[in-house]
Amino acid sequence: MYSLYYSPGAASMVVHWLLIELGVPHELRLVDTAAKQQKSPEYLRLNPNGVVPTLVDHGQPLYEAAALVLHVADRHAEAGLAPAQGDPQRGLYLQWVLNLANTLQSPLRLWWYPQDIDGEHADTVKDGARRRIESTWERLDAHLAANGPYLLGERLSAADFYLAMLMRWTRNMPRPGHEWPHLAELARRMKARPSFATLYEREGLTEWA
Amino acid sequence: MYSLYYSPGAASMVVHWLLIELGVPHELRLVDTAAKQQKSPEYLRLNPNGVVPTLVDHGQPLYEAAALVLHVADRHAEAGLAPAQGDPQRGLYLQWVLNLANTLQSPLRLWWYPQDIDGEHADTVKDGARRRIESTWERLDAHLAANGPYLLGERLSAADFYLAMLMRWTRNMPRPGHEWPHLAELARRMKARPSFATLYEREGLTEWA
Repeated sequence: MYSLYYSPGAASMVVHWLLIELGVPHELRLVDTAAKQQKSPEYLRLNPNGVVPTLVDHGQPLYEAAALVLHVADRHAEAGLAPAQGDPQRGLYLQWVLNLANTLQSPLRLWWYPQDIDGEHADTVKDGARRRIESTWERLDAHLAANGPYLLGERLSAADFYLAMLMRWTRNMPRPGHEWPHLAELARRMKARPSFATLYEREGLTEWA
Repeated sequence: MYSLYYSPGAASMVVHWLLIELGVPHELRLVDTAAKQQKSPEYLRLNPNGVVPTLVDHGQPLYEAAALVLHVADRHAEAGLAPAQGDPQRGLYLQWVLNLANTLQSPLRLWWYPQDIDGEHADTVKDGARRRIESTWERLDAHLAANGPYLLGERLSAADFYLAMLMRWTRNMPRPGHEWPHLAELARRMKARPSFATLYEREGLTEWA
């Protein structure tokens, strides 16, 4: 049994989505981020980074959303959301998950929290983060155009769920990810999954439906 | 047979180190980063991010250093540098590799290349990056104090090689990682491995020996 510490629409969303998609039992623990509950001593004992998600798996608290994507997909290998060890696509799968973490989730953090790096010049930090994010969309769209419709071609993987969440995070940016045509097609496919509707219902989400 | 596109001391270093540690055949392809060879059309076909490393595994170019750490350690599972799927420490191992990527490699990129985010205020961006890096050292040192000497306790893993490389990158910062005592102990252990001396010899490295 898993317990997922989450906040609606936050980085926990991809883990929640995968648990629904995989059909594995889990309980949800809402973290009230408006009340800074993720910085409480109780929560910091689970996750010293003070962010969501934390996934408790057999009593072991685990964090880092991208690591949880890899972990959960491997733990339920029968669903085929992660190429198995020895599969020729295994290396590419790991590459894409790390590439999304480095070239999207990391600059998105700067976009949302520029003051963590430079509180005096938050606007120029945001501009820089936006340029990096948009150049990533450009590169990913070219990849999907040549090798899509999913990151691993015809094969859906957990990396696509992660990409869809990150695309959703840019929905109110000047140029959201879904403005690029092959990313839009990936978003359309991911949103059409029944697990997406269940996720939206359970987290009470409405935007980017 | 692996081919590793590398530059001495760059992010390719951890992949090179692991290939030596694991004793697996590989050929090295030096990328002249001073001449911006990583931005050449030939290299960008292998790795559209235009950075080192790229590891060619059975003809498939793969990138993202942290992904290559995971990939190489899993491909040579007999060496025990990665807890196997199903091992209770597997989730923690993935967590640490992703945590190092997000809380060290990512702000270190800002420290080295602040102009990528904000060329006008490079100094304040660097200050912000430094604060994030130092708070990571603080948190990692506390983790090692309670659960060390390695990230997974008594068990050495590929994550420790990655951590040692990132610590090396901070050697000329105002507060290098090795100023924290439990991180210093981990560095001492990692530097004592015969593979470290071989790595230094092959890459022609001298600092932080």
